[in-house]
Amino acid sequence: MTEEARAFVPGHITGFFSAHPDESDPTKAGSTGAGLTLTDGVEVTVQQGNGPSLMLNGDAVEVEAVDRVLDALSAPAVVAAETDLPLGAGFGVSGALALGTALATNRVYRRRLSENELVTIAHGAEVQAGSGLGDVVAQARGGLPIRLEPGGPQDNHLDGIPARARVEYLTLGELSTEDVLSGDTELLSEAGKRALSRVVEEPTLSSFVHASRRFAREAELLTPEVAAVIQDVLAADGQASMAMLGETVFALGTGLTDAGYDPSVCATHPAGAMLK
Amino acid sequence: MTEEARAFVPGHITGFFSAHPDESDPTKAGSTGAGLTLTDGVEVTVQQGNGPSLMLNGDAVEVEAVDRVLDALSAPAVVAAETDLPLGAGFGVSGALALGTALATNRVYRRRLSENELVTIAHGAEVQAGSGLGDVVAQARGGLPIRLEPGGPQDNHLDGIPARARVEYLTLGELSTEDVLSGDTELLSEAGKRALSRVVEEPTLSSFVHASRRFAREAELLTPEVAAVIQDVLAADGQASMAMLGETVFALGTGLTDAGYDPSVCATHPAGAMLK
Repeated sequence: MTEEARAFVPGHITGFFSAHPDESDPTKAGSTGAGLTLTDGVEVTVQQGNGPSLMLNGDAVEVEAVDRVLDALSAPAVVAAETDLPLGAGFGVSGALALGTALATNRVYRRRLSENELVTIAHGAEVQAGSGLGDVVAQARGGLPIRLEPGGPQDNHLDGIPARARVEYLTLGELSTEDVLSGDTELLSEAGKRALSRVVEEPTLSSFVHASRRFAREAELLTPEVAAVIQDVLAADGQASMAMLGETVFALGTGLTDAGYDPSVCATHPAGAMLK
Repeated sequence: MTEEARAFVPGHITGFFSAHPDESDPTKAGSTGAGLTLTDGVEVTVQQGNGPSLMLNGDAVEVEAVDRVLDALSAPAVVAAETDLPLGAGFGVSGALALGTALATNRVYRRRLSENELVTIAHGAEVQAGSGLGDVVAQARGGLPIRLEPGGPQDNHLDGIPARARVEYLTLGELSTEDVLSGDTELLSEAGKRALSRVVEEPTLSSFVHASRRFAREAELLTPEVAAVIQDVLAADGQASMAMLGETVFALGTGLTDAGYDPSVCATHPAGAMLK
């Protein structure tokens, strides 16, 4: 049996989305929408052990989605994860933890599941935990994923924007995915459908950011602080919008730098989650 | 307009397959099966110009699948490609040329198509040219793709073996994909279905190589020279099979080296085709 396995999962910024709950089957619940996967991500190391336990950046934490993945794989694994991404700020860290744990645990415990089966387990765990709806399938694909249907890989039909970009981001605070998703999502889902049809019509980087910004406004998710930073980027001829769901501004190229901010810098990630 | 764009497409070794012709719609024709995408691949550079024209490793060549892609995109592009992979030897070079041309041409000529649309064009071009049935969708996904359904991305349902490996290969000669595919494919397709159900049951590297070797024998595609090299690798406790379709032996890890050969060395590629 392999003693240890590592997986890398890219971060994921959602630009816009529609929520699609399914009470009876979490693998069919999810979201449609589009986003950017990022070279900044989460590295997950799994060892056989007397867990389940999870350390994130050296601290013991509880992440329900990870517990559910380990439970589904009947694996009392010891999981250690490292990331430079901010937590609770719209980068899909919980989805990355769930997916990285699934990939690496399957290897260490020789569960002999396929990639789609592992993505389905991680997606279902994330949905049941209420911490995300679409990050896992996007992070499994990589690139700039367009989620055309909700659900796990059996149901979800993905496309992608064929592009690469430097990405800058600036996090102003935390925002609870659970709180937004457990509230009334009708307004945002209608706005998300309009944004999706725009990006399907014209799958380019600039139409993505434009549709994302319009979504953030129509869905009434913009905080005044986020709106002000986006305005500064636009005033400097840049392209920016808000990461869903976090109090985070992302910009293409040097948008935030040009506007006088000191952002984190990464790029879109050309590949999905991978064993290392 | 962007003056130039580059794309990298991984090579692809098919271990086993079943042919699924569709006379009326080339985007629905294709193959099921499984294979390995490779870090050795094809780099395609596209410029606006007075083409269509294609240079491969510095020589002017005609590749029907590339002509068809440029025709579908109404782009008189000048295409230059470089690869270390042997030609006509089962590495999906023609599929890589078609897919890389589609991705880079879409960017240079701002055709605003999505990833799936570009993969569909490249897949259809390859099928109509008769030079391949499943490489393009596998090369678009990366990793160790399992092709569960034939056809382009609208119809093809892909899964993957969650693994990475060092890959060695040795090419003994050329084998015409067109000749095999235009002959009677019933025997190989039946063998391919049996191999696929084995790998779906147990999606691991060793079950893949084992199913591939059995397929090569049952489909009666083994040449005596290829069979002898595979036998040498097995005798040295390695795992090897034949690349479909080429007079090429591939082995995992150090299989060919351990058997005393001097193979080319690469690894599985964790990502699909990408713009650079």
